[in-house]
Amino acid sequence: MAGNSFGQILRITTAGESHGPANVVILDGVPPGLPLCEEDLRTDLDRRRPGQSKITTQRDESDRAKILSGVFEGRTTGTALAILIENRDQRSRDYSEIREKYRPGHADYTFDAKYGHRDYRGGGRSSARETNVRVAAGAVAKKLLLEQAGVRIVGYVRQVGNVEAAIADPAAVTLEDVEASIVRCPDGAAAERMIELVERVRSERDSIGGVAEIVATGVPAGWGEPVFDKLKADLGKAFFSLPAVLGVEYGAGFAVATARGSENNDPFVAEGDRIVTRGNRHGGMLGGISSGMPIVIRCAVKPTSSLPREQPTVDRFGKPTTLSTKGRHDPCLLPRFVPMGEAMMALVLADHMLRQRAQCLSSLDPHPTGQ
Amino acid sequence: MAGNSFGQILRITTAGESHGPANVVILDGVPPGLPLCEEDLRTDLDRRRPGQSKITTQRDESDRAKILSGVFEGRTTGTALAILIENRDQRSRDYSEIREKYRPGHADYTFDAKYGHRDYRGGGRSSARETNVRVAAGAVAKKLLLEQAGVRIVGYVRQVGNVEAAIADPAAVTLEDVEASIVRCPDGAAAERMIELVERVRSERDSIGGVAEIVATGVPAGWGEPVFDKLKADLGKAFFSLPAVLGVEYGAGFAVATARGSENNDPFVAEGDRIVTRGNRHGGMLGGISSGMPIVIRCAVKPTSSLPREQPTVDRFGKPTTLSTKGRHDPCLLPRFVPMGEAMMALVLADHMLRQRAQCLSSLDPHPTGQ
Amino acid sequence: MAGNSFGQILRITTAGESHGPANVVILDGVPPGLPLCEEDLRTDLDRRRPGQSKITTQRDESDRAKILSGVFEGRTTGTALAILIENRDQRSRDYSEIREKYRPGHADYTFDAKYGHRDYRGGGRSSARETNVRVAAGAVAKKLLLEQAGVRIVGYVRQVGNVEAAIADPAAVTLEDVEASIVRCPDGAAAERMIELVERVRSERDSIGGVAEIVATGVPAGWGEPVFDKLKADLGKAFFSLPAVLGVEYGAGFAVATARGSENNDPFVAEGDRIVTRGNRHGGMLGGISSGMPIVIRCAVKPTSSLPREQPTVDRFGKPTTLSTKGRHDPCLLPRFVPMGEAMMALVLADHMLRQRAQCLSSLDPHPTGQ
Amino acid sequence: MAGNSFGQILRITTAGESHGPANVVILDGVPPGLPLCEEDLRTDLDRRRPGQSKITTQRDESDRAKILSGVFEGRTTGTALAILIENRDQRSRDYSEIREKYRPGHADYTFDAKYGHRDYRGGGRSSARETNVRVAAGAVAKKLLLEQAGVRIVGYVRQVGNVEAAIADPAAVTLEDVEASIVRCPDGAAAERMIELVERVRSERDSIGGVAEIVATGVPAGWGEPVFDKLKADLGKAFFSLPAVLGVEYGAGFAVATARGSENNDPFVAEGDRIVTRGNRHGGMLGGISSGMPIVIRCAVKPTSSLPREQPTVDRFGKPTTLSTKGRHDPCLLPRFVPMGEAMMALVLADHMLRQRAQCLSSLDPHPTGQ
Repeated sequence: MAGNSFGQILRITTAGESHGPANVVILDGVPPGLPLCEEDLRTDLDRRRPGQSKITTQRDESDRAKILSGVFEGRTTGTALAILIENRDQRSRDYSEIREKYRPGHADYTFDAKYGHRDYRGGGRSSARETNVRVAAGAVAKKLLLEQAGVRIVGYVRQVGNVEAAIADPAAVTLEDVEASIVRCPDGAAAERMIELVERVRSERDSIGGVAEIVATGVPAGWGEPVFDKLKADLGKAFFSLPAVLGVEYGAGFAVATARGSENNDPFVAEGDRIVTRGNRHGGMLGGISSGMPIVIRCAVKPTSSLPREQPTVDRFGKPTTLSTKGRHDPCLLPRFVPMGEAMMALVLADHMLRQRAQCLSSLDPHPTGQ
Repeated sequence: MAGNSFGQILRITTAGESHGPANVVILDGVPPGLPLCEEDLRTDLDRRRPGQSKITTQRDESDRAKILSGVFEGRTTGTALAILIENRDQRSRDYSEIREKYRPGHADYTFDAKYGHRDYRGGGRSSARETNVRVAAGAVAKKLLLEQAGVRIVGYVRQVGNVEAAIADPAAVTLEDVEASIVRCPDGAAAERMIELVERVRSERDSIGGVAEIVATGVPAGWGEPVFDKLKADLGKAFFSLPAVLGVEYGAGFAVATARGSENNDPFVAEGDRIVTRGNRHGGMLGGISSGMPIVIRCAVKPTSSLPREQPTVDRFGKPTTLSTKGRHDPCLLPRFVPMGEAMMALVLADHMLRQRAQCLSSLDPHPTGQ
Repeated sequence: MAGNSFGQILRITTAGESHGPANVVILDGVPPGLPLCEEDLRTDLDRRRPGQSKITTQRDESDRAKILSGVFEGRTTGTALAILIENRDQRSRDYSEIREKYRPGHADYTFDAKYGHRDYRGGGRSSARETNVRVAAGAVAKKLLLEQAGVRIVGYVRQVGNVEAAIADPAAVTLEDVEASIVRCPDGAAAERMIELVERVRSERDSIGGVAEIVATGVPAGWGEPVFDKLKADLGKAFFSLPAVLGVEYGAGFAVATARGSENNDPFVAEGDRIVTRGNRHGGMLGGISSGMPIVIRCAVKPTSSLPREQPTVDRFGKPTTLSTKGRHDPCLLPRFVPMGEAMMALVLADHMLRQRAQCLSSLDPHPTGQ
Repeated sequence: MAGNSFGQILRITTAGESHGPANVVILDGVPPGLPLCEEDLRTDLDRRRPGQSKITTQRDESDRAKILSGVFEGRTTGTALAILIENRDQRSRDYSEIREKYRPGHADYTFDAKYGHRDYRGGGRSSARETNVRVAAGAVAKKLLLEQAGVRIVGYVRQVGNVEAAIADPAAVTLEDVEASIVRCPDGAAAERMIELVERVRSERDSIGGVAEIVATGVPAGWGEPVFDKLKADLGKAFFSLPAVLGVEYGAGFAVATARGSENNDPFVAEGDRIVTRGNRHGGMLGGISSGMPIVIRCAVKPTSSLPREQPTVDRFGKPTTLSTKGRHDPCLLPRFVPMGEAMMALVLADHMLRQRAQCLSSLDPHPTGQ
């Protein structure tokens, strides 16, 4: 109830803190028989880990996932799947300065207001370290989606500061396109300018925001629920549950505000024996249910709040002071955000795949989901 | 599990369809002793109902809420509170045309793909009629928030098409400011231009989108959860669960993409014995937990999909055809969206108020939430 | 969260009180395409209703269920299914006597302790009237189980006071056997003695307890979950959630306390190409999962607490007083308990059928569930 | 959704298997500020662990709990609390015999039917080892109940085979009384006979069942919910979720079947300024809500299914065979069941304490819960 779980049929529950010995996730509801090993989790964990490139934080955390339960002889058993990631970077430091000061843009003050007691050595539970086990769980969900429904999820950086990528077709971007640049932008020219911008910002001891786009292809029409658990609603929650996200939009997004209905509606057309739409301003979801078109979502990610420069703030008694972050931080969160966003998309879609199976696979008359 | 419930401690479950006899909502977890009568639900229902002004649909649905249970002698009992709204506008029509055709922008096709069986007379469960009981439940949540925490929620129209309102201080807008214009925009000059635009659009048998802003004041620091049930995440889900919403942002929103950290962080300052921030780019939430500053969220709402003009589409066999909506529809959804948005904000905040009480009121050391 | 919902994938939420205008249930997660009409709910509602025979209460409540949503053209749509039962017996009475007195064995005192405000005209939310919509929902679940899995559920009265029925094979009892007597005991000789006992008890202005047995046949091996949501655990909760139940046991039940392992284990044997057990001391569940053998559960139901004789008690100020129930009450709850117990069994099994479908139907290798 | 979580506001999620490297539990919703250290978990883990006395299994598993998160400087933080217990007894054996055979009374067959893939080296997820983290979580819940509400929970063995203890007042039994005998029966004379019986049964290579009684004192009136989440229902589920439990009853339990209402109702009386009942046949719960009287529940626990003697069964192809358990097993589960039962009672009560706080602490009029 304190919000450490996410999902309905496929449900994850996580624990762990920035300065604790380990993070852990329990996946509840994974179907049995799915081939899975620790190696399957490595790629995405490496894409998320600090220290992976010159434009991310230089902290070196190689996150190695250990499967504690739920897998036997290389296949999931259907029982609780637990993954542990030990924290190998628990250095002892002097925390006396930040102990009493509220870091701007962080959860220090709100944690004190909520709990009256917190781990003052860092973000504690609100640290982005918490997302490493989400990424591990997301890798399981991605595998499930690919094996059982042919769904693929690819995310990339769409914008950093004022540098915007040109992406002709979001559904055509591949993992290889994304990983071709350390900033994870598949538009090579834009990627170069993004990297330059991030390096300039870092040299100025500042940080910069951006936009990531996450795309799912292969999702059949019919996933999602019509009222509160609309697919867009569960995805919206998933992305807003990630640190630093201040905006989420899908399809035409905020551009619908200035659109006319006559131009905004994507007309249905037949393509062979499938029904599709011309255009995808609806981002693959109508009435909260997948339409069979690619699902395309964008997240606005704020510039890192921790800065290696003096920032004004107060201490817990309200006394004015200043604070400068000593640790190593990302000058731009976007490159490492991409695997987190993919993981959350995967967890939502895998959950709704199973929900659809539970309720509608039993429908007495055959219908066009083709499952 | 099919997503007809929302919330954790204060939880609503709804049922009802566009062409059914009634909509109903059950509120689970309402504290006992709250003064409540049917009259308390009327204001917001009237703000949501069709036919309220010249710029909304001319369908006349006067939604009268009947409390079936959970209130005794003018106070809530703490047991299940059920509200029924009968559908007085169930006219018989000839549905043969839309029976087989997929309306663009609607859920007809996705419902068929999901369920293989649907009420073809209209939106069925995906109709916006479904929101009338959300608004009734939201009125209960608003009352609870005001009586037990002093929280107020006000929403308004920020933008229609290219007409943007100038709002100096979102937290200062009152219900009276909003209700002063039929378009629910507190900037009088902008409101006039918005009304003109909506009327022009209607005369062109088209529709137009816009942006609504919903603001909560009086929320103490400390509500929300640090991981999946971040306040922003639950609000994000709440707003995306409303029909026609394609984007949600809070605080600086998508503008963070081009911001530097040094300008984006709101510095903490003391104000008397309270700790506040200078500026509110963080929209009242840090680390997913309320900061004590006003909570400010915006939703992008698409132009109505139903249009009184021919639109190309296909029938369920994929055969190309056209379709023109005969019914009366809103040329712009925004004025009626405002009470829906307020209701969802109220339901999320009331739930988190109770969650905070459940877990943290018992904390052994007094701490600054002051509850 | 205040416990007005039950189930996971197939989930019911109820509202309504003894003296309110109506009871209502919303079923969430019903598969689409199931044939259903109001007539389907009538049989079980009639079996539950007061006034059905000379040995039940003489209050005449003919519960007529009205389907508000979720059914179109005779089939379920898969969206929220709401059923309303109006209360036709809301007579005005003088409640001044019971207003301040705590009825022994009832929830008057505990409601005051919990809520500080209650409907003093009767049981309010704790009234057994609340179960009428459970029975209606259970009728839907029964239909789903029968159509989609061939599962049948039959309950009957096993014991009233010291009169015990002889039931050679619980799995062989039919609805017709049960309905052959007004006490719902399929052992005709025992039924006669039970009826005599109930009539004697009533003439003595007293009440008597008993035991009901509920049996499900046709449940395939594999339903249920291995840890907290063991099938026996969800069934245990379901039966204990019914009023007046003070004990629940399955299979050999409390008799295991005196048993040796060597006699208690049911050996596996092959029967054609099925694996079954010789004996059913395990009541159809092993490790919390159905074994394919009949599921057999018994509930101990207390004697009615309301008695038409003076009983000592206190008023809300602790002052000693006496109280005699004026209304008409069942001298024995068992005959009307049977359909309630069947309904709860059906709701649990239908939920687990869908849960099994959601998680395990997708298993990559075919396995012996045969679904 | 696969049932690895339990509870609502205080919610536990567990993972781990008999032959895996570790078991883990995540507690969600623990209030902040509760003093807690690993030592606090040791007593109950030692009471549950194998090898603790001559009448339990001789496997030596010293379960040492490691707190991974949620505690800082000796107090809970309010964020996810994770506890890990490594499995130190993972010996390599030859599993070829049991790989294909279904052990009678175990979940081997039902797991195969459900999942089609399981860890054949032992019980896997259905092993009683799974309960070690429940006991650790229960120790946290016990501490919370004692510190914040003065509630104490004590369990003991009431019956082994035909040997029944004489317990004058369940509410007066202390932990010391219980721990005075290795069989955990506070009636010394009965305890001796129970021990003799267990030793005789073991010498006969057999096992024996029994009954445990779990008692909570200090629970104020008002905890629990009136409909599905009745306190008795959540407790019923909790106890039935433990392995080997085939029956649960509270208060007079199955004895109500033969009782008259006139003798079964516990009359309310005043005791100083408290309202209590004379007698406690209602086991501390009325209408599903605590009455302020001691909560008294009994569980029937079957004899261990694993026996060191030949038992007939079939293999997975249905071929008749025999099987004799080589491992060391408890001849009677009851002594080690006691801490498991206490843990589940504690988890349910702590959850309902927080639920009551969430919904009813805010009640506008003061009322008699006195919280």
